[in-house]
Amino acid sequence: MMSGLKGKVAVVAAGHSRWGIRNATWRELAQEAGRELFKAVPDLDRKDIDSLFVGAAEPERFAFQSHVAPLVADMLGLKPWRVVQRTELACSSGQSAVRSAAMAVATGMSEIALCIGVEKMNLPNMAEAQTSMACVLDREFDGPAGASAPPFFALTAQRHMHEYGTTEEQMALVSEKNHENSTSNPYAQFQKPVPRDKVMSSRMVAPPLKLFDCSGITDGAAAVLVTSAERAKEFTDQAAYILGSGQSAIGGNLANLASWTTWEPAKIASHEAYKMAGIEASDLDFVEAHDCFSISEIIEYEDLGFCKKGEGGKFIEEGNPYIGGKIPFNPRGGLLGMGHPFGATGISQIAEVLWQFQSKVPKKRQVAGAELAMTHNLSGAANVHSVLVWGRAPTVGG
Amino acid sequence: MMSGLKGKVAVVAAGHSRWGIRNATWRELAQEAGRELFKAVPDLDRKDIDSLFVGAAEPERFAFQSHVAPLVADMLGLKPWRVVQRTELACSSGQSAVRSAAMAVATGMSEIALCIGVEKMNLPNMAEAQTSMACVLDREFDGPAGASAPPFFALTAQRHMHEYGTTEEQMALVSEKNHENSTSNPYAQFQKPVPRDKVMSSRMVAPPLKLFDCSGITDGAAAVLVTSAERAKEFTDQAAYILGSGQSAIGGNLANLASWTTWEPAKIASHEAYKMAGIEASDLDFVEAHDCFSISEIIEYEDLGFCKKGEGGKFIEEGNPYIGGKIPFNPRGGLLGMGHPFGATGISQIAEVLWQFQSKVPKKRQVAGAELAMTHNLSGAANVHSVLVWGRAPTVGG
Repeated sequence: MMSGLKGKVAVVAAGHSRWGIRNATWRELAQEAGRELFKAVPDLDRKDIDSLFVGAAEPERFAFQSHVAPLVADMLGLKPWRVVQRTELACSSGQSAVRSAAMAVATGMSEIALCIGVEKMNLPNMAEAQTSMACVLDREFDGPAGASAPPFFALTAQRHMHEYGTTEEQMALVSEKNHENSTSNPYAQFQKPVPRDKVMSSRMVAPPLKLFDCSGITDGAAAVLVTSAERAKEFTDQAAYILGSGQSAIGGNLANLASWTTWEPAKIASHEAYKMAGIEASDLDFVEAHDCFSISEIIEYEDLGFCKKGEGGKFIEEGNPYIGGKIPFNPRGGLLGMGHPFGATGISQIAEVLWQFQSKVPKKRQVAGAELAMTHNLSGAANVHSVLVWGRAPTVGG
Repeated sequence: MMSGLKGKVAVVAAGHSRWGIRNATWRELAQEAGRELFKAVPDLDRKDIDSLFVGAAEPERFAFQSHVAPLVADMLGLKPWRVVQRTELACSSGQSAVRSAAMAVATGMSEIALCIGVEKMNLPNMAEAQTSMACVLDREFDGPAGASAPPFFALTAQRHMHEYGTTEEQMALVSEKNHENSTSNPYAQFQKPVPRDKVMSSRMVAPPLKLFDCSGITDGAAAVLVTSAERAKEFTDQAAYILGSGQSAIGGNLANLASWTTWEPAKIASHEAYKMAGIEASDLDFVEAHDCFSISEIIEYEDLGFCKKGEGGKFIEEGNPYIGGKIPFNPRGGLLGMGHPFGATGISQIAEVLWQFQSKVPKKRQVAGAELAMTHNLSGAANVHSVLVWGRAPTVGG
């Protein structure tokens, strides 16, 4: 029954805009990513794209614009006639768009679907932009208490330090690693190394999180083309196939968190995805995970199944999540290195998986011989986690 | 190939909040609809709801809240672990949520999915609410010219009058009919008859559209439970089965409209849906269509395939779209009678289809012996149209 999407759906092409503080509107960014995708599949007739899925978290606030999917279609000269929608799941909106496209393809509702994730977050009025960013948390219950992402993840980090002895130095290693990875990513917002000392001495944002423990405020877009496993060969010799999917939501506001340091939905979502794929965490060759803050990646080592609870700090100290290590985390550069345009991040991660499988990334960040990968996003107060498992082949070991 | 969803997916239960100017938050409205749904399926264990799809157009503006899906889960005591997302397609967001749930069920990604559509539009500051409503049109290109929904549909009406001789009196008949239908709908915002004379003498909003040619500004929610055709019998003796689906997007801003009076995407979307269902428009027993303004329904008679181009006005004059007529339009009361909470409308229409098939609606609005129905939404500058075809049985004539 729950074979679900396994092996049926392929990502066959990707496109990416430059990320950073961009002098461009949200739809110009979407257009930039879409056009780059079209260059990768020159034989594709845009008229054959029957469906469009846009991932965006809050264009209503950042651009005073709803109904964004058809505007993207218009910018790219598309006239989809089967499924057209935007998906929103805050910082996981991009992956949600791809999951929706995958379901459309797996049912036969769509033959060729375009997914574009986009967010324009740097605005003339940055105070308003930052207030808007906070609406991914529970505004009604937690907003009055001052909750926004940095203090929430700061409290999470404090508690993890208290319970497990995790250190600020260990968190700095995550930031150093991901900034190092993004030095070889020309799309990244941050392209210079940030050594651990620089992380440690950067200005305090919300104790213990310092500036370089936090992902940036980013404008950007990314795009992938989704089709059936059967049709994938029309577009590429090497696609990325969906093998597993899981999403879990538990609780909405901070008062309902069962734990600050164990992300139960991460465990459930990854378990579901591994089960569908028929694999275990240890089978994966690399992971694109949601390091919105350095502490996030440390908890993800634990709750996605790569080390025991509380040992995430030690896990990076021992060199495991580096390229060439036991399980590379975020070869793309992560949110810390790439920046984090909410709706685009999940799709950029998937583009990285495709390009890794196609050996199209610079050698420095290439994960040699990767066959299996995972993309992971969290959203809100880490109360929702979303996971997709990807294979170089539509069957495991195939 | 494009059998797609046909016959695989069933709506088995529905719930509805009272619609109108409500002293309730958006999530209280969602909770109200969800709880009523649960009453309709008392044997359902909420723990078995594996997926949640929320339709909402712009909670970021109306409630300063993104990441709305998990907040709805939390309000209803749900912990979905397969798919969780919000879909946005402006005024068609509700139907998009149900289409997404249907795709999840058809792939086997979800076994039992809850769909909730919600919008809280009446705010303390109504000027801000109305400005926010306009962001379903193209703010960047058309906003500076003053475009919002009433003037757009007013221009559409003027042009239809010019090209085809459609009259204000014919439009008034649409409003009279739908208000008459909603007098038997206890959830409706408007429950009193509005005779054609009252429509004609109501105050001008945007010529030729008068107050009662326009749908209301409405707070409300609606919910449906979606499962596979195989499992439908666990919940009800009479489900509503999806037989066809189509969505078409052409153009984003007013400068790109090919025509003001022919809605090409309505023709394409309904054609796709009829083709998947294996039916023609004339096979349908009733239609829930998107009468955001009275002129909309007149154009829909034409472009959804019930009369020739330009004859929509005559079509209602001759009595066709009334209950008991050739093809009843909007027995529920339509947007004109029910009001129009953007994200909820599409799901309320589907609830009506289920309740009609189950003979649960008051006799006055019951369409006797209905076997086939259609739900239709438009969004933005009528540049996107969304259609689902429904059957009392999972096969046509079955």
